[in-house]
Amino acid sequence: MARRGEFEQIAEVFAPLTRGAAGALALGDDGAVLSVPAGCDLVVTTDTIVAGVHFLPDDPPDLVAQKLVRVNLSDLAAMGADPFGLFAACAFPRGTTDAWAEAFATGLGRDVEEFGVPLLGGDTVATPGAATFTMTALGTVPSGQALTRRGARNGDLIAVTGTLGDAAFGLRAAQGRLRGVSPDAAAWLADRYRVPQPRTALAPRLRGLVTSCMDISDGLVQDLEHICRASRVGAEIEAATLPLSEAMRDVAQREGDWLTVVLGGGDDYELVMTVAPERREALYAAAAVAGVRVTVIGRCVAAEGVSVLDDEGRRLNGLSTGFRHF
Amino acid sequence: MARRGEFEQIAEVFAPLTRGAAGALALGDDGAVLSVPAGCDLVVTTDTIVAGVHFLPDDPPDLVAQKLVRVNLSDLAAMGADPFGLFAACAFPRGTTDAWAEAFATGLGRDVEEFGVPLLGGDTVATPGAATFTMTALGTVPSGQALTRRGARNGDLIAVTGTLGDAAFGLRAAQGRLRGVSPDAAAWLADRYRVPQPRTALAPRLRGLVTSCMDISDGLVQDLEHICRASRVGAEIEAATLPLSEAMRDVAQREGDWLTVVLGGGDDYELVMTVAPERREALYAAAAVAGVRVTVIGRCVAAEGVSVLDDEGRRLNGLSTGFRHF
Repeated sequence: MARRGEFEQIAEVFAPLTRGAAGALALGDDGAVLSVPAGCDLVVTTDTIVAGVHFLPDDPPDLVAQKLVRVNLSDLAAMGADPFGLFAACAFPRGTTDAWAEAFATGLGRDVEEFGVPLLGGDTVATPGAATFTMTALGTVPSGQALTRRGARNGDLIAVTGTLGDAAFGLRAAQGRLRGVSPDAAAWLADRYRVPQPRTALAPRLRGLVTSCMDISDGLVQDLEHICRASRVGAEIEAATLPLSEAMRDVAQREGDWLTVVLGGGDDYELVMTVAPERREALYAAAAVAGVRVTVIGRCVAAEGVSVLDDEGRRLNGLSTGFRHF
Repeated sequence: MARRGEFEQIAEVFAPLTRGAAGALALGDDGAVLSVPAGCDLVVTTDTIVAGVHFLPDDPPDLVAQKLVRVNLSDLAAMGADPFGLFAACAFPRGTTDAWAEAFATGLGRDVEEFGVPLLGGDTVATPGAATFTMTALGTVPSGQALTRRGARNGDLIAVTGTLGDAAFGLRAAQGRLRGVSPDAAAWLADRYRVPQPRTALAPRLRGLVTSCMDISDGLVQDLEHICRASRVGAEIEAATLPLSEAMRDVAQREGDWLTVVLGGGDDYELVMTVAPERREALYAAAAVAGVRVTVIGRCVAAEGVSVLDDEGRRLNGLSTGFRHF
C-alpha cells in the first residue's frame, strides 16, 4: 500500500504553469488562496478523463493534457464564464516515465498560455490502474450572468458552434477504423477528437444574449435533451441544417451511419444554445467577432424531447443517439 | 471506447447532498455558480484517493467516501479555512453495483451533514481500472489570513493535533497484520486509518495565532520538512513528547518499529503547526475550546532539516521516515 505523495520532479515541471499567480503558492502548499474579483460569481466545473475511456492509451501525452484542459474550459464556456484558474489531479500509472509526465506538463503549459489561465494547484498520485486525470476549472462571470440550461423558451432558435460529429469519426480515424477518406481528412478528424476547441472567445459574448447554453460532450440530441428537461420545452432539429466540416462531407459519402454519429456522437465540445428569434443577428454578430462559426439548427417547441426532421419536415425515427455508460 | 456520461441513478442519490445550495444547480448543469462572501479569500484544494493505494479495495464504500471528504477538509483546516463546498469526481470501476455507489453516496451525505458543507458538483465516469475519487474542496478565510507553510521562525514551538501513527498501524490492523493487540484497539486503529478526523473546528482559531501550518499526510518528519524548507528553518523534535493514543501505547510494547511509524507513517491527517513561544497558552486555550488535543513536540532552530532527539537530547539516527511514491 502506497500512500499519497507528490512527484517532486513533476512539481518542478508544473510550477512554472502558475504563470506567477501568487495564490498558487508555487504549488507547494496544502491549497491555493484566491481572491475572486468583486462583482463576479465564481463558476466551478470538474471533469475526469480516463485512459481507454476518454482518450486512447497511446495518445500523445501533451494532447491528453490539452484535452483535459479543454473539456473543462468547454464547461466554463457553456456557462459564459471566463477562465480564472485550473487544478489538475493526476493519477499516473506506476511506471510512468519522466518523459511521459514531462510531455504531459508541456501540453498543460501550452494551453495555460493559449488560454491565459494559470494552473493553481493539484495532486499527483500513482495508480495501479488506468491513467486518470481530473481537472477542476474555476471561471468568473459578472454576478448573476452565468448561462445555464434552464432559460430556453418555446419559440427560441437552437444554434450550435463549429461543426458536429468530427470527433466521433476522429476517434475511428485515430483507431484506424475509418476507411476511404484522405489521410489529411483522417488526421484532421483525429485532431478534432484529441484536441477539442473550447469556445472560450465566444462565451462572454453570449451572456445576456442566449437564453440557455451547454456544451455537447455526449452527443447533440442527448445533450439538447438536458436543456429541454431543464427548460421544460421540446426541440425540433432540421437535419439539413446541421453544420458539417469538409472532412465530414467526405466521410458522409462512405459511412452509412454518419447522420446518427453527427446527432449522437460524443466529444464534440461545441456549444448548443437557445436564443430568441429577434436576437439571431446579434448572435451571428457575436460569433463573427469571436471568430466562431454559429449555425441555427432548429427551434424550441411546446412538446417533449428532441425531434429530428428531414428536408420535408418529417420526423426521422430509429436514430440511435447518445451514449450512456452503464 | 466509452465516452463521458453520468449515472443518472447516482445523480439522483447525490442531488440531496447539495443541502439546498442554489449555486449547485441541482448538480444538473455544466458547473456550479457561487458567490464567495465579500472580504474572504477562497481556499481551494484537491486530493485524489485510489483503491489499493489510499484505501483498501474492500473498505466499506461509505467510509471511502468519508475518507475522500476528510482528507480534503484536512487540507482546508491546514490553511485555516472554513469549508464552503465540495466537488466529487468519481471514476467507478465498470460493474460497480448500485448498492456500492449508493453506500458511497450515503457516506458523502454523512459528512456533508457532519461538517455542514454542501456538495456543489462533480463528475461520474466509468473506469477499466481502480476506483479513483478526486475531491476539490473550497473553503473561505478572511482576506489575507490563510495559513501557509511559510511563516515559521527560529525559536517557534512546533505543535501537533491529536495523536500520531494510529493510521499507519490502523492500516496493518485492517490488513490483519497487527498481532497481539486487543480487538478493540485494532478496530480503533483501523478506524483512524479509514476515517480521518479533520481539525475543522480548530482551524479558524489558528488564524492569526500560529505562524505556519500544514496537515500530516505523508508522515510527520517528511511533512515538517516542507515547513522547514518553505520557512527556511530547521526543526528539533523531542521523541518523548510525541502524543500517542492508548492503543498506540499498547502497540508500542510489541512492535519494534513503532517510533519510526509514529514519525514517518502516513495518513495521520493531523495538523502540524508552529507558534511563537509566548502564544503557547493561547494555542492551548484555542485547542480546549475546539475540543482538540494539541501537544508541543519541539521547536524551530537555525539549522537545516528535521532532527529527532531522545530523552537526553541526543539525535536519533537511522530512522526511516516518510514515504515517496516512485
